[in-house]
Order: sequence, then C-alpha cells, then structure tokens
Amino acid sequence: MKKGFFITFEGCEGVGKTTQVKMLKEYLEETNQDCLFLREPGGTEISEKIRAIILDPNNTQMTNECETFLYCSARSQLVAQVIRPALNEGKLVICDRFIDSTFAYQGVARGLGAEYVDTLNKLACNGIMPDLTIFLDLPPKQAFDRKGGADLEDRLEKAGMTFHEKVYEGYKLAQERYKDRIITIDVSGTKYETQEKIRNCLKEHGYIK
Amino acid sequence: MKKGFFITFEGCEGVGKTTQVKMLKEYLEETNQDCLFLREPGGTEISEKIRAIILDPNNTQMTNECETFLYCSARSQLVAQVIRPALNEGKLVICDRFIDSTFAYQGVARGLGAEYVDTLNKLACNGIMPDLTIFLDLPPKQAFDRKGGADLEDRLEKAGMTFHEKVYEGYKLAQERYKDRIITIDVSGTKYETQEKIRNCLKEHGYIK
Repeated sequence: MKKGFFITFEGCEGVGKTTQVKMLKEYLEETNQDCLFLREPGGTEISEKIRAIILDPNNTQMTNECETFLYCSARSQLVAQVIRPALNEGKLVICDRFIDSTFAYQGVARGLGAEYVDTLNKLACNGIMPDLTIFLDLPPKQAFDRKGGADLEDRLEKAGMTFHEKVYEGYKLAQERYKDRIITIDVSGTKYETQEKIRNCLKEHGYIK
Repeated sequence: MKKGFFITFEGCEGVGKTTQVKMLKEYLEETNQDCLFLREPGGTEISEKIRAIILDPNNTQMTNECETFLYCSARSQLVAQVIRPALNEGKLVICDRFIDSTFAYQGVARGLGAEYVDTLNKLACNGIMPDLTIFLDLPPKQAFDRKGGADLEDRLEKAGMTFHEKVYEGYKLAQERYKDRIITIDVSGTKYETQEKIRNCLKEHGYIK
C-alpha cells in the first residue's frame, strides 16, 4: 500500500535541526518537488494539545513513563491521521524528530531502557517506519556554545548538560542498533555545508532530485 | 515494599459505579477507616490535563491508539505519583476505573485487541496491579434505561448502544481472563442492596471492617 517515502531528522538540542529542515523545505519548494513537512510532537490538532502538556514547564512532576506515553500518543495520532495517508498518496514525508528521539531521550537519557521504548514506539507507529533517518551529529557542548544559550525556555532544554550528554549517547546507541536506517551527518561546518551534505545524501538515495 | 491494598471498581456507563464508590467512601469515613479514593483518568494535576484531552467532544478525529496511549499516560502518572506511594504507606487505595476499562473499551469495543492493551497497561503500571477488582454487572440497555438518558454529554457516552454492548462483552472477557482478581456483583437491585454486597465482599476479603 505504502508508495511514498518517509525521512526523519534527529539530533541533540541546538544542532541546527530546525534550520536544516527549513532550508531543505525551501529547496524542495523552489524546485517544485512535492513533499510534506512535519514536526514532533505535533502535526495534528490533537498532537499539538498533547505537545502543550509535554512541554509545559509547570509539569515538573511528570514521570518518565508518562512523558513517553504522551510522546507516543501524539505520534500514533500523527501516523494515523497524516503520515500513513500521505505515504499512501505517494508523498515524500519529512519529519523533524520521530521514534529515535524517544529512544535517545526517554529510553537512554531518562533511563527507561531500549525495550520499553521500542515496544511503545512499535505500538504507536503501527507498521510505519522511516525509510531513512538523518542524524545531525554534534556533541552537546559544541551545540550549546554555538546556539549561544538563548531560547532554552522549555522544560526539556532546561534539563542541563549532563542530560544532553546522555541523549547524545542514546543517539550513538540508536545508530548502532539501526545502522541500516540511520545515516550520520557531521554538522561541525557551516549551515550551508551541512545542507549540501543532506541534499547529496537524499539525492544519492533517490528521495529528492 | 507494598503493604497496602489496591481495589478497583469497573463497569459499563450508568451502572451506578460513581454512586457506589461514593457510598463506600462515606461508610469508610464514618467508621474511621483510612483510605484513598481516586478516579481514572485523573487523580493528579497532569492526569487531569490528559483527561481533558481524552474527554473533549471536539477531538472527534482521535484514533483508538492515541486514546489508549493517553489513558495509559494518565495511569502511569497516577500510579507513580499517588498509588504506589500510598500503598507503600500501607493505605487502602480505591480507584473508580483502572486497567480493565482500557481492556473493555479500547481492547475489545474499539477493537485494538487484548495483547495491545495488556502490553500498554503493563508498561503504564510498572508492577502495580489491583488486589481485587469489583465489576458492577448490568447489561448496558438496563443501565441506560435506569439512568434515564441524562448526563450523556461527553464523547464516550455519545458512542451509542452498540458500542456499550461491546464494552460489556469486553468486561465479560476480562472476567474470564482475570478470574482470580475480578469479582462480579449483580447490581440489578437497589443501590442500598448493591452497597451491602460490596461491603460484604470487601469485609470477607479482609480489606475493610
């Protein structure tokens, strides 16, 4: 049934993920390549309501389990309502964060474990998996220095450097576990150099022109 | 570690579950028996926010998977923040709806299947299970007639009689699967007769005096 392609972007806070996804979107629009851009958590009215609970800095008592279930609830709605129908129409779907964020943040950094998170991800996605995942690789310390410490207002970004180091470890572990799906791109150069690498990678795989 | 007891109440819409739980609460308070009453979804600030999303009648596009993940997210928060600590303090904890509601409503009536729901319930509860579950048994048609059709405003109660018949089937299936834990109480008599049966049952098991 699935005819389109599903690409996800992953990486620690401050690696320039949102900027890169935006630059890619502009390129694809300029070259008239039909695609759908999404971000997680969110992308549907219901998922955005769930996002608001997850990111509310007042919810300091939220357990790791609750947080993970909430991410997966938002994901299951996005998959069923948007991603699966778009793929069935043959679209290229590009999502800023997806299952590997939950693996790195909740599974590894929060300590729930790979099996707990893999089980929930699988039940939330109901058979839909990314065809390709681009991991934007930059150690958290460098990423934060580059970002200049601004814009760290939501609950997750307040978690501190030790937490983000663990997230980075989580992504490295995900890379090992899912090496057929996850491609690592070094982002220590300029944002234009990184964008060039991303486009070349997607062109090589035949997902974009 | 666990020293208290955990009792849950289950049943279809309109069987008088909330009334019975309230009457039991009054009895236990009058007789100075320390206990904690909860309802699901809810019971913590975060779980109540999740409850608001689940029960919002505007969320008509919510998928069964998303709904189930949301119930379990609220549950995991309630278990970790309230139920587990109370049981560790030796308290009697009584909850209006718990895992069997998800089994009957989402697993059977919505069709997600027993395995899907059991997996999520298990990961949400993290080792906490009811010691005893009281299923208030009345076929949906009788329950709705008795309730007089009032107060059917939230999304779930609007779902229609066919749906509630399936929920009832779901509870019957849960009874078979978990016969050591679930006790069925016929509620076709008056509310006072039902309350008497509930108290006698809990007294026989040594959970109340």
